[in-house]
Amino acid sequence: MNETPRLQGVLAPVVTPFREDYSPDPARFIAHCRWLLSQHTGLAVFGTNSEANSQSAPERMELLEALVAAGVDPARMMPGTGCCALTDTIRLTTHAVNLGCAGVLMLPPFYYKDVTEDGLYRTFSDIIQRVGDARLRIYLYHIPPVAVVGISLSLIERLLKNYPGTIAGVKDSSGNWQNTQAMLDAFAASGFDVFVGSETFLLANMRHGGTGCISATANVNPAAIHALYASWQDSAADVQQEKLNIVRDAFGKKYTMIAALKQAIAHFADDPVWATVRPPLMPLTAAQTAAFLPELDQLGFTMPGLKLACAAAVA
Amino acid sequence: MNETPRLQGVLAPVVTPFREDYSPDPARFIAHCRWLLSQHTGLAVFGTNSEANSQSAPERMELLEALVAAGVDPARMMPGTGCCALTDTIRLTTHAVNLGCAGVLMLPPFYYKDVTEDGLYRTFSDIIQRVGDARLRIYLYHIPPVAVVGISLSLIERLLKNYPGTIAGVKDSSGNWQNTQAMLDAFAASGFDVFVGSETFLLANMRHGGTGCISATANVNPAAIHALYASWQDSAADVQQEKLNIVRDAFGKKYTMIAALKQAIAHFADDPVWATVRPPLMPLTAAQTAAFLPELDQLGFTMPGLKLACAAAVA
Repeated sequence: MNETPRLQGVLAPVVTPFREDYSPDPARFIAHCRWLLSQHTGLAVFGTNSEANSQSAPERMELLEALVAAGVDPARMMPGTGCCALTDTIRLTTHAVNLGCAGVLMLPPFYYKDVTEDGLYRTFSDIIQRVGDARLRIYLYHIPPVAVVGISLSLIERLLKNYPGTIAGVKDSSGNWQNTQAMLDAFAASGFDVFVGSETFLLANMRHGGTGCISATANVNPAAIHALYASWQDSAADVQQEKLNIVRDAFGKKYTMIAALKQAIAHFADDPVWATVRPPLMPLTAAQTAAFLPELDQLGFTMPGLKLACAAAVA
Repeated sequence: MNETPRLQGVLAPVVTPFREDYSPDPARFIAHCRWLLSQHTGLAVFGTNSEANSQSAPERMELLEALVAAGVDPARMMPGTGCCALTDTIRLTTHAVNLGCAGVLMLPPFYYKDVTEDGLYRTFSDIIQRVGDARLRIYLYHIPPVAVVGISLSLIERLLKNYPGTIAGVKDSSGNWQNTQAMLDAFAASGFDVFVGSETFLLANMRHGGTGCISATANVNPAAIHALYASWQDSAADVQQEKLNIVRDAFGKKYTMIAALKQAIAHFADDPVWATVRPPLMPLTAAQTAAFLPELDQLGFTMPGLKLACAAAVA
C-alpha cells in the first residue's frame, strides 16, 4: 500500500523550461517547482501545459530524477505518464512509482481515435498489472479537447471495481461542468478524488465534494488559487472565484495558454529564455507580448518571490 | 544527395506481429516483409496500420535493425518516424537515414490540436536541420481522420520552397479525392510524389500524375494491387479497381482494419498469434472471426505463398 498522504488542493501542470536549443533545463525546472511548493501548490509535472508529449521518455525521466535528487519532495508530485505506446506508459509509471511520487496522471493512448471502452479498459488494466506495485495511484486524465480520446463514466466504474486501491481519481479537463458533476455524483463518495482542470470550476468542485484543481494558471497565480481552495467555505469565496477567472482569461482568452504562461514567467523572473516553447508550439509574437504584459500590469498581476526563487538558476 | 531510386508503386504499412505478451516479434516481422517484397510491395513499416505509435522508439529501432540485419533491402523501406516529441522524431529519422532507408513517412506532432502552420513549419524545418543529412527524403503524412493535425497545401509549398531536395512527397490518407487532386495539381509536376493512403484511389491517382499508394490492405492483397499499378493504362484497369475495392471493403467496412488484417494473416499463415494487437486496439471477437473468414472465402480471397514464407518464423 501507498502510505503517502493523498494529493489534494491545487496542483500546477508545471511548465517545462527549455534552453534556446530546445533542450530541457533542470536548474530552471527545479527553481520553478520550489517556488510553486512555497505557494502551497503541488507538482503535476509532465501535463499538457508542461509540453510533456513534446518530450521523449528519457527526457522526462531525467527531469524527474533531477527534481527528486535536488530534494524536492515526491510526495507532492503527480507526474504525467500516459503515452500512446503501452511500453512507454509502463516505463514512465514504474519510474515515477520507484521515485516515490504520490500518484501519476495518466492520459489514455491518444493516437487511434475510434477505440472501444474494452480497448481502453484493457490498456489501463495491463499497465496496472505490469507495473505491479501496491504504491501505484492512478489519476485518469480526461481531456477530450486535446487528446480526443476520453475517459467515460462507465470506464471509471469498471476500473474502480477491479482496481479500487489503484484508481485514485481523475483530472477532468473537459471544461464541461456537467461532466465533472456526474463524476462527483457517481464516485466521490467512495473516495475517488476529482480534480478539475481549471480553477474556473474550483469553487463548484469543492462545493460538490471535489478534491481540488490541476490548472495551467497555477503556474503563475498559485497563491490566489490556493487561497480560494483553503477558504472555499467563506462568504467571500464567490468574489475570489471571479477574481481568479479574470486572471485566467488574461492568459488564455486571447493567447495560447502555454506561450502566455512562459512569457509571464520570463518577465517576472527577468529571464527571457523562459519564453522558449518547443515546436509545434510557438512563443507569443513581439506584438502579442507588447500587448499582454501591460494587460497583466493593469490587473495588478505580479508573481511575488519568483525572481528571487529563480535567481540561482539564471546565474 | 540520396542516390537510392525514389520509391514508387505499392507499399504496405506493414502490420507488426506481437507475441501473446505484446512484445514485438522480429522473426515474424521479417518473414512478412519478405513475402511483401516477393509480391512487388514496398515496406512502409511503422505506419498507422503497423501500430507504430503503440510502440516505443527503442522498440521501433530494434525492429528496423533486425530487418536490415536480415538482409531486407532498406532501399525498399519508408519507415514512419513522426512522433509527438521533436526529439523522438529526430532520433528515429536519423536512425532510418543511417540504415539507408529510401525515405521516411513523417506524421506531424499530433498531441496539440490547435497548432499553427508556422508551428508545423518550424517543426519540420527543425527536424530537417538537426538530422542534417543530404540523404534524408521526407514523405509528409496527411491523415486527419486519425492524427487530426493535418498537412495543408500552403505548408507543403513553404517546405518545398526551402527544402526542395528533402521534401520528397506525401501520403494522403484524408480519404478525400479532391484534396489529393489539389496536391497533384499544385506539386506533382515539380517532382513531388503523391501516394494515396488507400488503393481505392490508386487508379485515379495514377491517371492524374501520382506515384502509387501506401495502403493497409497491401498487407494482404499486395499482388492484385500491384497488378493495377503496373497496368493502370490498360483497358481493364477500371474493372481491376472495382475488384480491389470489394476486397478492401471486406476488411475495413465492418471490422477494425488492423484487427481484420492480422486475423487474415493468422488464418492464411496458419499462425494464430498473428491475431494479437496491442491495447488500446482489440482483436476481432470469435463471432466476428467466424463471420469474417467465410466472407473472405466467398470472395475467393487467398494469400498465396504466405504460409510457406512464414513457416520458418513459426517454427
